Amino acid sequence: MTGRITFWFEFASTYSYLSVMRIGALAAARGVAVDWQPFLLGPVFAAQGWDTSPFNIYPAKGRYMWRDMERICAARGLPFRRPDPFPQNGLKAARLALAAAEQDRIEAFTKAVFQAQFGDGADISSDAVLQGCLRQAGLDEALRLRAQSPAIKSALRAQTDAAIAAGIFGAPSFVSGPELFWGDDRLEQALEHAAAAQI
Amino acid sequence: MTGRITFWFEFASTYSYLSVMRIGALAAARGVAVDWQPFLLGPVFAAQGWDTSPFNIYPAKGRYMWRDMERICAARGLPFRRPDPFPQNGLKAARLALAAAEQDRIEAFTKAVFQAQFGDGADISSDAVLQGCLRQAGLDEALRLRAQSPAIKSALRAQTDAAIAAGIFGAPSFVSGPELFWGDDRLEQALEHAAAAQI
Repeated sequence: MTGRITFWFEFASTYSYLSVMRIGALAAARGVAVDWQPFLLGPVFAAQGWDTSPFNIYPAKGRYMWRDMERICAARGLPFRRPDPFPQNGLKAARLALAAAEQDRIEAFTKAVFQAQFGDGADISSDAVLQGCLRQAGLDEALRLRAQSPAIKSALRAQTDAAIAAGIFGAPSFVSGPELFWGDDRLEQALEHAAAAQI
Repeated sequence: MTGRITFWFEFASTYSYLSVMRIGALAAARGVAVDWQPFLLGPVFAAQGWDTSPFNIYPAKGRYMWRDMERICAARGLPFRRPDPFPQNGLKAARLALAAAEQDRIEAFTKAVFQAQFGDGADISSDAVLQGCLRQAGLDEALRLRAQSPAIKSALRAQTDAAIAAGIFGAPSFVSGPELFWGDDRLEQALEHAAAAQI
């Protein structure tokens, strides 16, 4: 039986970009299946008393994060542009991702959105940008109607509640069995745990 | 000419323990010299509006950190006990470390304090514990008098001011040339930068 990992990500999150672009290949190499789970960090941060990204609230940490991202993306050969504004509004993208999941296309769609945002610096709250991402993932633009349905809106709220219940406080996060791992820096460790837990 | 790295650490910091116990060997293997620079996170956190460790202020993050430390210490064969209270008061230890630096014994003393705190769960504000650390580092207990001198007290305040001026917002942090690296996860990257900057 194959190992499984749950991958919690937020569309506006810089470090989620790093994991989105590599988790598929790394997991496949270890025979681990990935459950892609978008959620919203806004409510998580609000519960901590924050009204924006901590990278905006704490300037020294924010300056560091941008430089850290530049260095890591350069080392990995990933294009990197700082989106403006930051954080982006990822609500539409997250709903579309859940709709794409119904057609087994969530990985392709999610990678297209992160590439547009952090590779090209595009605004992912823009319908035109999101349409391009749907096309790139081989999805019909009519998926936008499904993404606006009460079922999908409610499913995204449930995702975020489930993330909080799982003890998640930031993104990306990975869950393998009872273990939570936080941050792209822990992706290998999380995958090794999932691979070792195979039966 | 050998590469150099500046190693900023706080005695109460869990992740500083991880770097304190390995930076010497990793740096030596790359021909990089380490400048050991203790500072106090308290004033750094106070400037961000925090009156204790963020791991206490944000419970989900705190729970995660303790589990993360357990896993990493287990993987590295490092003993790990959670000190009580957390965070410990590291003021005396930091002053003693600056006095130990005057005798070129800061690494040995610092490792002894971190081992006592996170390996044995000892209280590092205790004079008896600190005396044991001095002995372990081959230092005279009379160093306690030097550690209470106005010169050392003022030097520690200057350390913390210098850390803030360098953009440091957490510990451990590493500086190589113009580059800042934060967290034990970035130690290898920081050392590679320092090694590559050798002339």
